[in-house]
Amino acid sequence: MQVADGKLSPEKALHCLGQSPFEQLACGLNLDHHRALRTGLGEVVFAQGKSTPNLLAAVENLAKYKNGTAEQKTLATKVSPAQGEALINCFPEGEFWVDASLFCLGTRLDLAPPWSAKGEVLIVTAGAADLPVGLEALGTAHFFKLDAGLITDVGIAGIHRLLPHLENLSKAKVIIAVAGMEGALPGVLASLLPCPVIAVPSSVGYGVSTGGMAALMGMLASCAPGLSVMNINNGFGATAFAAKMLRNI
Amino acid sequence: MQVADGKLSPEKALHCLGQSPFEQLACGLNLDHHRALRTGLGEVVFAQGKSTPNLLAAVENLAKYKNGTAEQKTLATKVSPAQGEALINCFPEGEFWVDASLFCLGTRLDLAPPWSAKGEVLIVTAGAADLPVGLEALGTAHFFKLDAGLITDVGIAGIHRLLPHLENLSKAKVIIAVAGMEGALPGVLASLLPCPVIAVPSSVGYGVSTGGMAALMGMLASCAPGLSVMNINNGFGATAFAAKMLRNI
Amino acid sequence: MQVADGKLSPEKALHCLGQSPFEQLACGLNLDHHRALRTGLGEVVFAQGKSTPNLLAAVENLAKYKNGTAEQKTLATKVSPAQGEALINCFPEGEFWVDASLFCLGTRLDLAPPWSAKGEVLIVTAGAADLPVGLEALGTAHFFKLDAGLITDVGIAGIHRLLPHLENLSKAKVIIAVAGMEGALPGVLASLLPCPVIAVPSSVGYGVSTGGMAALMGMLASCAPGLSVMNINNGFGATAFAAKMLRNI
Amino acid sequence: MQVADGKLSPEKALHCLGQSPFEQLACGLNLDHHRALRTGLGEVVFAQGKSTPNLLAAVENLAKYKNGTAEQKTLATKVSPAQGEALINCFPEGEFWVDASLFCLGTRLDLAPPWSAKGEVLIVTAGAADLPVGLEALGTAHFFKLDAGLITDVGIAGIHRLLPHLENLSKAKVIIAVAGMEGALPGVLASLLPCPVIAVPSSVGYGVSTGGMAALMGMLASCAPGLSVMNINNGFGATAFAAKMLRNI
Amino acid sequence: MQVADGKLSPEKALHCLGQSPFEQLACGLNLDHHRALRTGLGEVVFAQGKSTPNLLAAVENLAKYKNGTAEQKTLATKVSPAQGEALINCFPEGEFWVDASLFCLGTRLDLAPPWSAKGEVLIVTAGAADLPVGLEALGTAHFFKLDAGLITDVGIAGIHRLLPHLENLSKAKVIIAVAGMEGALPGVLASLLPCPVIAVPSSVGYGVSTGGMAALMGMLASCAPGLSVMNINNGFGATAFAAKMLRNI
Amino acid sequence: MQVADGKLSPEKALHCLGQSPFEQLACGLNLDHHRALRTGLGEVVFAQGKSTPNLLAAVENLAKYKNGTAEQKTLATKVSPAQGEALINCFPEGEFWVDASLFCLGTRLDLAPPWSAKGEVLIVTAGAADLPVGLEALGTAHFFKLDAGLITDVGIAGIHRLLPHLENLSKAKVIIAVAGMEGALPGVLASLLPCPVIAVPSSVGYGVSTGGMAALMGMLASCAPGLSVMNINNGFGATAFAAKMLRNI
Amino acid sequence: MQVADGKLSPEKALHCLGQSPFEQLACGLNLDHHRALRTGLGEVVFAQGKSTPNLLAAVENLAKYKNGTAEQKTLATKVSPAQGEALINCFPEGEFWVDASLFCLGTRLDLAPPWSAKGEVLIVTAGAADLPVGLEALGTAHFFKLDAGLITDVGIAGIHRLLPHLENLSKAKVIIAVAGMEGALPGVLASLLPCPVIAVPSSVGYGVSTGGMAALMGMLASCAPGLSVMNINNGFGATAFAAKMLRNI
Amino acid sequence: MQVADGKLSPEKALHCLGQSPFEQLACGLNLDHHRALRTGLGEVVFAQGKSTPNLLAAVENLAKYKNGTAEQKTLATKVSPAQGEALINCFPEGEFWVDASLFCLGTRLDLAPPWSAKGEVLIVTAGAADLPVGLEALGTAHFFKLDAGLITDVGIAGIHRLLPHLENLSKAKVIIAVAGMEGALPGVLASLLPCPVIAVPSSVGYGVSTGGMAALMGMLASCAPGLSVMNINNGFGATAFAAKMLRNI
Repeated sequence: MQVADGKLSPEKALHCLGQSPFEQLACGLNLDHHRALRTGLGEVVFAQGKSTPNLLAAVENLAKYKNGTAEQKTLATKVSPAQGEALINCFPEGEFWVDASLFCLGTRLDLAPPWSAKGEVLIVTAGAADLPVGLEALGTAHFFKLDAGLITDVGIAGIHRLLPHLENLSKAKVIIAVAGMEGALPGVLASLLPCPVIAVPSSVGYGVSTGGMAALMGMLASCAPGLSVMNINNGFGATAFAAKMLRNI
Repeated sequence: MQVADGKLSPEKALHCLGQSPFEQLACGLNLDHHRALRTGLGEVVFAQGKSTPNLLAAVENLAKYKNGTAEQKTLATKVSPAQGEALINCFPEGEFWVDASLFCLGTRLDLAPPWSAKGEVLIVTAGAADLPVGLEALGTAHFFKLDAGLITDVGIAGIHRLLPHLENLSKAKVIIAVAGMEGALPGVLASLLPCPVIAVPSSVGYGVSTGGMAALMGMLASCAPGLSVMNINNGFGATAFAAKMLRNI
Repeated sequence: MQVADGKLSPEKALHCLGQSPFEQLACGLNLDHHRALRTGLGEVVFAQGKSTPNLLAAVENLAKYKNGTAEQKTLATKVSPAQGEALINCFPEGEFWVDASLFCLGTRLDLAPPWSAKGEVLIVTAGAADLPVGLEALGTAHFFKLDAGLITDVGIAGIHRLLPHLENLSKAKVIIAVAGMEGALPGVLASLLPCPVIAVPSSVGYGVSTGGMAALMGMLASCAPGLSVMNINNGFGATAFAAKMLRNI
Repeated sequence: MQVADGKLSPEKALHCLGQSPFEQLACGLNLDHHRALRTGLGEVVFAQGKSTPNLLAAVENLAKYKNGTAEQKTLATKVSPAQGEALINCFPEGEFWVDASLFCLGTRLDLAPPWSAKGEVLIVTAGAADLPVGLEALGTAHFFKLDAGLITDVGIAGIHRLLPHLENLSKAKVIIAVAGMEGALPGVLASLLPCPVIAVPSSVGYGVSTGGMAALMGMLASCAPGLSVMNINNGFGATAFAAKMLRNI
Repeated sequence: MQVADGKLSPEKALHCLGQSPFEQLACGLNLDHHRALRTGLGEVVFAQGKSTPNLLAAVENLAKYKNGTAEQKTLATKVSPAQGEALINCFPEGEFWVDASLFCLGTRLDLAPPWSAKGEVLIVTAGAADLPVGLEALGTAHFFKLDAGLITDVGIAGIHRLLPHLENLSKAKVIIAVAGMEGALPGVLASLLPCPVIAVPSSVGYGVSTGGMAALMGMLASCAPGLSVMNINNGFGATAFAAKMLRNI
Repeated sequence: MQVADGKLSPEKALHCLGQSPFEQLACGLNLDHHRALRTGLGEVVFAQGKSTPNLLAAVENLAKYKNGTAEQKTLATKVSPAQGEALINCFPEGEFWVDASLFCLGTRLDLAPPWSAKGEVLIVTAGAADLPVGLEALGTAHFFKLDAGLITDVGIAGIHRLLPHLENLSKAKVIIAVAGMEGALPGVLASLLPCPVIAVPSSVGYGVSTGGMAALMGMLASCAPGLSVMNINNGFGATAFAAKMLRNI
Repeated sequence: MQVADGKLSPEKALHCLGQSPFEQLACGLNLDHHRALRTGLGEVVFAQGKSTPNLLAAVENLAKYKNGTAEQKTLATKVSPAQGEALINCFPEGEFWVDASLFCLGTRLDLAPPWSAKGEVLIVTAGAADLPVGLEALGTAHFFKLDAGLITDVGIAGIHRLLPHLENLSKAKVIIAVAGMEGALPGVLASLLPCPVIAVPSSVGYGVSTGGMAALMGMLASCAPGLSVMNINNGFGATAFAAKMLRNI
Repeated sequence: MQVADGKLSPEKALHCLGQSPFEQLACGLNLDHHRALRTGLGEVVFAQGKSTPNLLAAVENLAKYKNGTAEQKTLATKVSPAQGEALINCFPEGEFWVDASLFCLGTRLDLAPPWSAKGEVLIVTAGAADLPVGLEALGTAHFFKLDAGLITDVGIAGIHRLLPHLENLSKAKVIIAVAGMEGALPGVLASLLPCPVIAVPSSVGYGVSTGGMAALMGMLASCAPGLSVMNINNGFGATAFAAKMLRNI
């Protein structure tokens, strides 16, 4: 089946849906090898809540891992430290980034500082504690081979820290803005800049900020046009959205 | 009993508490003529939920209204249009400001535009729809004879609109910042200026902003030091807090 | 000041911020004539909660309305029937679409059925009751001169109704998916298609769906990559986000 | 007392209620030996929150456990790993399934993969992380001797994975659909199939999905007729409902 | 296409999905004529939030209404008094039951008291104020030609009122139990009887009961096995679920 | 059947439950004539949400109303103004107190001011706007022939207003304390006095106080021993609880 | 100062308030030795959140602990296992009941089973997991020397288990009913019995029951007159309320 | 740049904003050395959620720490015990107060009891368990060199304990009142005293008090004028607000 660039005609879609290009593992997992064809993005393993054997099986099968090498690059998200250790033991050539909760096989995520402060996809975090979500977004961007950068700790408690970055920000094609607490940074960026801003609330804070609900509500309520919102801490999803944007437009 | 400037010794306080300087009306209202002595601010009538006869009785007795004149200035807040009409019919020399939901007897609130854009108490509203709350705060300030100003519609969707006001803002002793939706304006002001910022969430908006909860949570969650928060739409309370601040420090 | 296509250098941005290209009206409104320069999208009037005189003043000034003509096209959103009537009385050459809650001056929104079922921006509604939000999005798209279409009533209670539209959907550059109740349609579209999906929860439904919270939470929680979410009923914001995407990428 | 198949006349019911066929244990537990007569389903031990001695006493007495054998089959649900270990130590011929949080004495639950993908009661899970809830439902079905199957990991992020199972699904008498995150799978099944769908939200996910509230609300809000909803993670309850359905209709 | 009794093979399902047996109306509605084939229950019009012209068009087309007669029976739910009046004016041979919020064309709903107190589907309401939801369920049962009865006002504040009905209750195949306030009736019934109980919370009450959330949470939390829950006030959905149960088992 | 003072032996209870001393009306109402025997308090009509015909039927039958006289005293609570008018038209010798939302037939409620400020049951309201709830409690006390008083407007914003009432308060057998906003009055009373305090949150206030949730939570959270809490605005329930206390201890 | 039976005249109250019979400890604790005089119940130590040194100091000072004996009986509630161990180490003649989270010095709580099933204060728990809250209530009753009993595990999933207890229940002066999950037991008791019922929601359950909110809301919403509600898990408060009732009426 | 006392003209502000006096660390932190100039309060490190290396880097750089001495005083808040240990290991001349969760370098916080019970800033805690929040406020006051005192354990369950402190309270310029549970203390203080009261809800309590939401809502809802509210447990923010007040008025 010859399908270019992720765009299917409806007839092909129906046909493909009937041909079931997925793989049922013995443990109950059902790997969707077909997703990249339909949506342009291959399946990624969501580790949270998976048992270790199931997680290992998912990664092994998605990577078509044999004889210590992966035929296909594979990403797992929301990987706990214990899961990460198990993955590294099993797939020693992979890399596990504990801050970003990402495990990767078959390509490099390259998440060590310093980070580039420019890119088509420019990730901006409001506070130092938002860094893990920013790194999840950056790692995902590297996985999808996007031109991405990361600017950290420029929240509205010291908004002037944004100024040296305005040139890069105004050149970005899409901004991913991560903020906890009141979550005001994405709205400020959207009111100043021409590019779309993907807002990611983070679960940083205490009291009414606990779990990220204040930031989430603030971002949804923002009066600045050009802002859309992800689930709390969903750095992966923000980059996946950006990837579809950049590939499809 | 001679009590100057609202400061009581504990002995006097106990003594006064035992002497009960309040007035029980037939309708069940219990007017606290003593409050100004204790706290520096006289009793104000909260109109919401009061029946019209009770509201009229409260205003009449607080004002010691006789022969068409008030011996004492009196303020009623959260006055509905119907209540305002009843009050004006009964006390024709009073004034009712429908936008601010304020009725006043025995002094002038002076709420017509244009408003002064400077003052020791400087009220700032983020959007045009926050104006009613801003006017409630301004009217209360005029009632308490504070030096107050009002700057409108300078929210973070166009943050540069704040710039011409920075000089006045930096001269204010206290800022009252009213915002709905994501409620980000007070945090931005607190991060830029040396004076304390009293944040008032307003019930402007729809969806997650309905009723003002997103703005309230955002303001409480703000990471900018120097911010405290009032109940939603409580413009009166913000100015009352400012008045106590200015008189007591 | 010569600024092409909404992209500012940081020096220019700072300079512009200092030059304050906005307009303070007597009634307290503060029109941001500068926003199109910064962000690529001009200021739009949010009518909800504005008094009628303020609303008329805002539209008049943004449109630079003189002698019965508007020099500049202007849009007002969340316009109530009563506000719409007042606007039409004052600006008789404008158009008011009551279902979409939009008023427009200086251009045509063209919202009467039948609607085109294809476009770069393809708006999809799950149920018939989501139509008002879909029309707000479509009207905004026409205002911004985007190539837009509208497909209605294809929610997951009869998912096969999507099939004849799959070809158009797969050709779209961005999809805006409006759904109330459980809000599942955007996730289904994101799992099938390569383009980014902007999800708009609508306040359709009763019980746990009242006000749109179930749909909002469902969309945020979606496990399908390529989805971002707007505030409940924010059809305008979805199209504004799409416009920035299309202009900036 | 001769009572066939769980159906009581009102006279008998009243009579039985007056005869109290339950058993008060010294530790305060009150075992309802009568429940199977009234409702067709015997009492099951809810382990969560019980102290270990109380849990052991409840199982021992319900099973009428003597000399290392159980005269009656017994099930305990929501059994923690520590509780499971204590139960196995005390009743070594029992079985404890840690994923399903089930302990069973006097019959076999048979929960090891691979699972049958067909049955009168067909359990379907949306994601791999929903497996524990699906296994709780499957184990309960085996305990009640229902003809049951389990299909895993066929959620709407790859809806085509459902297609090979459509024949079995359309032959089921009742479907139990477990999903976390946005919880959309049950609605999709109900819109496609003739059989009733019992929806079980699972607590899989993070941010707004934490604890399963987004899935619960989505399922309740579903516009697809033929869907009813259980408490979050209540796989046991779903099967108990199915059992009553199958026995009583 | 010959499809008996609502059960499709997967090949047929796929084929049918590709053939699109639905009807797109000019106003944007998309009638799913295919639903009865797939699910055993034909499409029903959800009136809430639909404009009157759209509602009339939906009913007319589903009923294939010509020359003052309906070729096919049609039901609309959550019909407001104003919508009901418009429907009756347009389709004078229909019937509108204002308490039940139901409009029906082409068959009779027969909702006037007294109601039969027995039936395969036995609807039970806890309080007099739950009657509208009970009548919505009963009318839906009559529309689907189920053998149904209605027992009213037997909530737990006077649980003995249930006793004379125990014989009928124990003969029912399925019970639909409607309750507001604390919503305890369904749990009591499930603990006493062998048949499955579909619990419908109603929005009866004030304070914490407002909108039905306390009843909803209580029903979901019930410890009595054999209970599943619908959205608040969803009497239609409860009967639709019962209909699928009775037809499919 | 001879049952003195509302105390039943279990045998009698079971016997009575089997004999069903209630009355099923044609409209579906099920009057519990037996309740006074079991619980010491006769059935009271909850008017909210009842249709006018049903409400009239309930009152008529409970009162055994014939030839313009009631054989038995009857109370209806949460009666809207429109319902009250219909009741008075139908039963002209009854009395309707619009503030208290109470209708009464066969006895006098006597709710006009001034009210006695002492009694075995002493009702205390924090603010003037809490008066309706206080009057509902007082009217219920008069209906049940309790020795009751009402003290109004003594909330913690002027706590000294309580002092003149301390003697009466310390003589009360039970206090019912009604408060809105932060609901602090009941906790203060419980910390000062020996008698039990029944706390009733009222729905007075705006912002976070809307609907009474802040008051409800504050009362439940109170650290002062000797406090229990009713649903928001449930003045009737507070007095019913007090009545059971006084009759049973 | 001679004050009998906890009843103060207002003059004495004021006088006492001025004389401050409390004790400030070095660690910041402020023991209220006066409370028993005012309210009839002495101060009890709330252990949760206190540091161990502060907890020990509070107990030591309230007990006037010298030379290894307590001159005064003292109770601490919500004592964690670690706190309990520290208390027992320090005050070896005290007793610590880990299930009830109570520590007591100077009197005996006597909480080992079997418990008496009758008493003026009769505590009833719905499920086995509610036992800790029931024991907290029972221990408090023993501390206050009330005639108390405890009936366990008689919730509505097997309501007939209540019947053998009806005689004792109808003889009780006050019932304390503890229930988790849907919290229906207190309402059932209030509808059957003449005595007041103090409802205590417990935090037993999962999903919507987590933390006890469903039970709390159900109890507040109950339509059965004669019920009042405590905070979740507040067994101590329920008994304190009962004690004030019994002593003051 | 010469900027006295934290007050900037708008020109200077803009100029400064353009000159970026902040410091980007390699780890991504962005220290705002400029904040003291703008707002009068230097940057403080929020430790929660920061990795240990980032926390150490932040403290080291803010303190300009070299050769074992700090050139500048530095405060870190919400420091966990583990973080505190790491800080002390790295900066042995600093002090870590585990109860207050504060770490300080370059000045002394002096938090050991006994505390002064008077001061311009007078901190009052309602219960012993509120002490940590009170100490966070006190330590912050000492860091900012404010004249501050701390009065503990004087909540409304024993309101007379306040009386000996009334003189000091009436002399304070601002009161910080910390309370958990129902959070009533700040309202009582505001109703009695002339100075502004900053209310800080604490997360003390269980059931509805869990996490501090009941206290937060109660404080926001308070009807006593002169009260403003901080986020839950935000003792630092309360003192920062007080500091701005005292310095700016």
